[in-house]
Amino acid sequence: MDEIRLIEVKEGILSESRALAERLREKLRSTGTFMLNLMSSPGSGKTSLILWTIDALRADFRIGIIEADIASTVDSEKVAARGVKVVQLRTGGFCHLDATMVAQGLEVIGPQGLDLVIIENVGNLVCPAEFDTGANKNAMILSIPEGDDKPLKYPLMFSVCDALVLNKIDALGVFDFDFQALEQRVRVLNPGIHILKTSCKTGEGMDAWTGWLREQIRVFRQGDNRCEPH
Amino acid sequence: MDEIRLIEVKEGILSESRALAERLREKLRSTGTFMLNLMSSPGSGKTSLILWTIDALRADFRIGIIEADIASTVDSEKVAARGVKVVQLRTGGFCHLDATMVAQGLEVIGPQGLDLVIIENVGNLVCPAEFDTGANKNAMILSIPEGDDKPLKYPLMFSVCDALVLNKIDALGVFDFDFQALEQRVRVLNPGIHILKTSCKTGEGMDAWTGWLREQIRVFRQGDNRCEPH
Repeated sequence: MDEIRLIEVKEGILSESRALAERLREKLRSTGTFMLNLMSSPGSGKTSLILWTIDALRADFRIGIIEADIASTVDSEKVAARGVKVVQLRTGGFCHLDATMVAQGLEVIGPQGLDLVIIENVGNLVCPAEFDTGANKNAMILSIPEGDDKPLKYPLMFSVCDALVLNKIDALGVFDFDFQALEQRVRVLNPGIHILKTSCKTGEGMDAWTGWLREQIRVFRQGDNRCEPH
Repeated sequence: MDEIRLIEVKEGILSESRALAERLREKLRSTGTFMLNLMSSPGSGKTSLILWTIDALRADFRIGIIEADIASTVDSEKVAARGVKVVQLRTGGFCHLDATMVAQGLEVIGPQGLDLVIIENVGNLVCPAEFDTGANKNAMILSIPEGDDKPLKYPLMFSVCDALVLNKIDALGVFDFDFQALEQRVRVLNPGIHILKTSCKTGEGMDAWTGWLREQIRVFRQGDNRCEPH
């Protein structure tokens, strides 16, 4: 009985959130702002990837960052030190971001002046996958130490993302990670997902990552339909 | 408005779950079954630690495992291969286990014949921390690649656990991890937590881990009050 009640409420919230997410996307289109939602487990390298991305793209794009964290401001301090616009959403126990929270964040950083907004979602492979944040594209990080079986265990996350960044490849010597098996498991869920390998420690793969992101922004600016999330 | 509604429902579910958890603990006391709830991020090593624990304790205890997984049966197959009683709870999108789900699992494996039940919770540092599963003790794994800042970002998980297993210490050469900083951050939240270092790859620290677990079971059997979760 408990479960049924929970699901109903969740469904209501999910559909309200989807509608708000659509309105948010319309608004961002009017300001010419591309928004990326970045998700992963705790400690997979979201903040590090964002810092690399800022350094690589700041000459060409005006960038804003929305940091989600349950309790701390650790990440937003690192981003703020780069001198870009950043807002910290302290979710106070909430395990994900939804469009309502993102809208609040956007109001603070003011999207009208920005070309690119990156959302660093709460570190969690489960709940964030269920919510449309209003972003144009979803990307996720899976780090090598987490293992190649994760698509079997967290299929929704791998299904809703447009890009999968396999991070910490510098640690490959220490962990068993079967790229072929991983890719097979991912493709079953999401044949079109773009898969990249990176190391935020050595910088390997960063050009491919920022190249992908530049291409998404270019397509978005052309008003291409493909830019809506599936 | 949305948030308020969500919180109310959540609170209702949390208090129902707490009451059921108490009843579950009473029932387990009557069958002399000690139950451990093991939590962590995805890929931190929960299943590997459980396999080591089975091998180390099976001569002295009758063991049952409750595996939670959103979608797959990967973990329970590994455990079943060890020949111990195992039940797989497919949570179908739920991001945590609560006492209702654990009660269903216990009914299947039949606790009356068991000395030790280990719950492998859903891989998630957020939601599982909020739910009392009915276990006597909570333990969590933080793996070295996840980083030493996690207590700042997921404080509730570190607050509700009796033991913290720092796993993958074999990978220390590849990652920066400041044990002192980690311990300081954890102690602020939870001064009494027992911290251990392990490698499920090399077996380092396993004796200390299983020693801690044996001691918890011994105290539980003496009916010591300290054995209730805080």
